[in-house]
Amino acid sequence: MITFINPSTEKPYIRFQSLYQDALANDQRGIEAISVSSYDLKTNEVEARYVNLKYITDNEWIFFSNYNSPKAQQFSAHKQVSALIFWPSINTQIRIKALISKTSIEFSDMHFKSRSKEKNALAISSNQSQNIDSFDEVEMNFHQTLKSMTTDTVRPDFWGGFSLIPYYFEFWQGHKNRLNKRHTFEQKGGEWEERFLQP
Amino acid sequence: MITFINPSTEKPYIRFQSLYQDALANDQRGIEAISVSSYDLKTNEVEARYVNLKYITDNEWIFFSNYNSPKAQQFSAHKQVSALIFWPSINTQIRIKALISKTSIEFSDMHFKSRSKEKNALAISSNQSQNIDSFDEVEMNFHQTLKSMTTDTVRPDFWGGFSLIPYYFEFWQGHKNRLNKRHTFEQKGGEWEERFLQP
Repeated sequence: MITFINPSTEKPYIRFQSLYQDALANDQRGIEAISVSSYDLKTNEVEARYVNLKYITDNEWIFFSNYNSPKAQQFSAHKQVSALIFWPSINTQIRIKALISKTSIEFSDMHFKSRSKEKNALAISSNQSQNIDSFDEVEMNFHQTLKSMTTDTVRPDFWGGFSLIPYYFEFWQGHKNRLNKRHTFEQKGGEWEERFLQP
Repeated sequence: MITFINPSTEKPYIRFQSLYQDALANDQRGIEAISVSSYDLKTNEVEARYVNLKYITDNEWIFFSNYNSPKAQQFSAHKQVSALIFWPSINTQIRIKALISKTSIEFSDMHFKSRSKEKNALAISSNQSQNIDSFDEVEMNFHQTLKSMTTDTVRPDFWGGFSLIPYYFEFWQGHKNRLNKRHTFEQKGGEWEERFLQP
């Protein structure tokens, strides 16, 4: 589930929320899963992974991650990313281009405090995407951290939010015979320019 | 559905096929939908979209598209892409890095012949991703093309297959408390190097 906090009332945001409600009503599994694609300036490789979109507040789309992870390093060197959503339950794809940056310390603290002790133990114990010898080692680190945690345990500096600010939306709806409907919004000088694209 | 034609028997391919069978047995919707992310060397933007993976033959992953589309232009200027799959029914994500190229003319012809007249009419009539005034215009172009088609209608040069050859796989399986299991295979000197990553 995505939490909406005073979301923008601009046209593509309204459209997004309406499709989200449709997908929810159609029991879409993994509705908060969005794929975020980034470019690695060191290796010249495109990489993509799913993240859980937790909040939409004003025009920001927020998820959380380890700030030392490979994706965090990619985001800081090349701030343009793509986000992609597919909800088969309503045969809808949403394509976004956005700029990415870290959320405020306050927002990261707020979200960290709202999470279960177990999820936070994992955020603290995992050196995300580093090699490890076995899954047993992952479990051992986790259980040691969990045992050591108290009610005073605070968010570590290396974990927090990322905020996407979209500048391009495509709403793609599948249709019979591949006559798919494609409707785009592109930010140009503070306005959203609308277009229809051929399928 | 994906059609497997003599797929590679190397370890990551075997693993993929086994997960595919699991997802199929769990009624995964849109099982052939994979997101392909590419880099646009002209605009320095990452873009992503879903495509339907139609075939896996030997070590090639094949889908079809318009060769004049923006993604086709991106693939030809920057051949490295990322492919991403998420099957919520088995809580599994598969991340791939690959090189992309056009399939043979024979393979594209073979697939074109196997498709319905309606799908081919769309492939012929749509100037993919170009602006259009309305959806009515899309429908009109489609119906005019469909009416003009005969049994002799051949594949147009601007439509055909793309083949991904993966050089990196990550199999990600969701687990309680985010203790997700991550297992990677990277091609190094003709061998697949295996690793486990921290969640």
